Amino acid sequence: MAIIVQKFGGTSVGNPERIKNVASRVLEERKKGNSVVVVVSAMGKTTDSLVSLAKEIHTAPSGREMDMLLATGEQVTISLLAMALEALGQSAVSFTGWQAGIKTEAIHGNARITGINPEAVKRVLDEGKVAVVAGFQGITEQGGITTLGRGGSDTTAVALASALKASRCDIFTDVTGVFTTDPRIVKDARKLGSISYDEMLELANLGAGVLHPRAVEFAKNYSVPLVVRSSIERIEGTIIGEESSMEENLIVRGVAFEDRITRVSVLGLAESLNGLPSIFAALAKNSINVDIIIQNVIGDGSANLSFSIKTEDLEKTIKVLEECRKRIGYEKIETESGLSKVSIVGSGMVSNPGVAAQMFSVLADSGIQVKMVSTSEIKVSVVIDDSQMVEAVEALHDTFALSGTQVQPNA
Amino acid sequence: MAIIVQKFGGTSVGNPERIKNVASRVLEERKKGNSVVVVVSAMGKTTDSLVSLAKEIHTAPSGREMDMLLATGEQVTISLLAMALEALGQSAVSFTGWQAGIKTEAIHGNARITGINPEAVKRVLDEGKVAVVAGFQGITEQGGITTLGRGGSDTTAVALASALKASRCDIFTDVTGVFTTDPRIVKDARKLGSISYDEMLELANLGAGVLHPRAVEFAKNYSVPLVVRSSIERIEGTIIGEESSMEENLIVRGVAFEDRITRVSVLGLAESLNGLPSIFAALAKNSINVDIIIQNVIGDGSANLSFSIKTEDLEKTIKVLEECRKRIGYEKIETESGLSKVSIVGSGMVSNPGVAAQMFSVLADSGIQVKMVSTSEIKVSVVIDDSQMVEAVEALHDTFALSGTQVQPNA
Repeated sequence: MAIIVQKFGGTSVGNPERIKNVASRVLEERKKGNSVVVVVSAMGKTTDSLVSLAKEIHTAPSGREMDMLLATGEQVTISLLAMALEALGQSAVSFTGWQAGIKTEAIHGNARITGINPEAVKRVLDEGKVAVVAGFQGITEQGGITTLGRGGSDTTAVALASALKASRCDIFTDVTGVFTTDPRIVKDARKLGSISYDEMLELANLGAGVLHPRAVEFAKNYSVPLVVRSSIERIEGTIIGEESSMEENLIVRGVAFEDRITRVSVLGLAESLNGLPSIFAALAKNSINVDIIIQNVIGDGSANLSFSIKTEDLEKTIKVLEECRKRIGYEKIETESGLSKVSIVGSGMVSNPGVAAQMFSVLADSGIQVKMVSTSEIKVSVVIDDSQMVEAVEALHDTFALSGTQVQPNA
Repeated sequence: MAIIVQKFGGTSVGNPERIKNVASRVLEERKKGNSVVVVVSAMGKTTDSLVSLAKEIHTAPSGREMDMLLATGEQVTISLLAMALEALGQSAVSFTGWQAGIKTEAIHGNARITGINPEAVKRVLDEGKVAVVAGFQGITEQGGITTLGRGGSDTTAVALASALKASRCDIFTDVTGVFTTDPRIVKDARKLGSISYDEMLELANLGAGVLHPRAVEFAKNYSVPLVVRSSIERIEGTIIGEESSMEENLIVRGVAFEDRITRVSVLGLAESLNGLPSIFAALAKNSINVDIIIQNVIGDGSANLSFSIKTEDLEKTIKVLEECRKRIGYEKIETESGLSKVSIVGSGMVSNPGVAAQMFSVLADSGIQVKMVSTSEIKVSVVIDDSQMVEAVEALHDTFALSGTQVQPNA
């Protein structure tokens, strides 16, 4: 009997009616003759309410106690979903993270999974019951309750699928799959039938919010086939798996974008050798995420350094740089806000060196100035002016033949 | 260093402000140089809300899933109280039932504690931290979460106190101690300085709602000194312990009462030998609590049986008796509602055979007819008309010298 893992997020289990709907989706899969493990998040805004409750008591509660508190959110959902399944005549057993054998590091609030002992879950499946597992949580070797941080429930689902050797891990969301670009911005955006782990990873990192990069990485490392699909509509989603030959002819698979980007330039950096690691270590320590980094060494040995950050981090970044100034020495800081990042993603690029050139030419034709560039084997990102973002996305989507209303067939 | 266990109920931790108040009470004890373990219930009406949520999904949810759901209630409280203690500068660590090593039977909704492994709690106390433990819950040998049913948090506190060899277990409530009778009915009611386990057990069973009989029984079996005290006022409570010599001169320690009692009589019972067990087995199977039982065998070998029940169970009782009729054979059923039970309790009765007689004479003097009588070594209960209940309680309270505004000194 094949094992299928299904993951439903907080919105999908936001109230008793929706929990009943999830139960009926689970039952559909069960009736196909498959064993089903369901991973769920806390109901709707539960986590936010619990956080506010804690803030009323302590301005900075300890990670251990915060995890103890937050873990109750999923525990409520698992019991209610098990009841909903039983109400439909399907035996079900709920599992907290520790009961499901989800072991993590002893880091509170953002623990990584270190191992899974799926025996208890397996036993329940063998009895023909549905296993309902709390996402987002685990247990340390010392028996402390931990939470996995952002994207935690996706990661729980993928990790369980891997440990149980599941045939598939379905991620149910409020969209119907992975699109060539954001359908809210580009009307011609098309749902992809399938996409590779690496492509999805780039898209996820570029802000396509369907799946957390951590979960995609986990799925890639353990070859877990993922499907992103709608929790409401009964239609095929997007399969995420190994490189698919089927769609090779498409060099670019998607266009991703992100606004509210700021470029920060540190000019006349005296000693680039030690200055560079020093600056980025200080930024990382202050949880400032740096994206694109460019450095030019000028004739006299001094360097100009530019990097992009989220505009919301600008104030913090300047403060960090000013603190570094004495130690590393530089002439001045220049910043430019009101920027966007637009990226094209596709495994086909590796063997098609002309793709970046084609991208630049399309942008130039539209009179769009490129301010920064960054490339990987399967991605090209450019930073441009905010006001030209939508135009750039539409032109690139068009050029790389991503438009069309037809969904590509699944593998 | 002495270990003190403190238990706070749902009302005492009903909102963030009250949780902060509990934290400061805990700190007071800690500052005396004692190690403190705090046992808490779910906040205010949390349990009721969770039950309603479940009922929206399943009319009769399984015990296992109900326990999974309800156990989140105390888990929220323990984390918030630990945070509140940390906000006051006192290190604290929260424990769910399973983390505190509270092992129970595999009976959901009403499990009994089978053992406690207090090592983890002990370790935390040894580090100078306060241990905050979720009441009302435990874990089965198979790793399932259970709840202990009514009075569960009291029982958790007493069981932990026993396992940790605590010097004292304080039960904080919304009353200031154990009274000679209900102070809402009898103005002269007096708070007792101390009372024995057995006396408290009888009072608890008779509906004096301060402490659950289960917790008292546990405390008695393991000789855990209990103190019932106010969570708001800083005054001495009532000590519950072994027979105290100090107050020996008081034969009767309290007057308890309960209204809405019905007498059921089964007349002309043909075969009392098999009929009796048959009737009471059927009543027990239907969760009907029978209190006083009286049987008279008449000349011809048939018998008249009377017993008292809660009036709310009357309909169910008649149904059960009618179902038994064919099997056991009887002439007719007679019932009388609108009755009350009034009891006097005190260990001194054992060596004072005249107490019951004195009780009957006091009642006769007030023109109160006694309809049923039941006695134990330390208790006499009578069933009388509802309309005479308060008069009876006042007369008995007076007669046995229980009145007075002065609190008796603690041992």
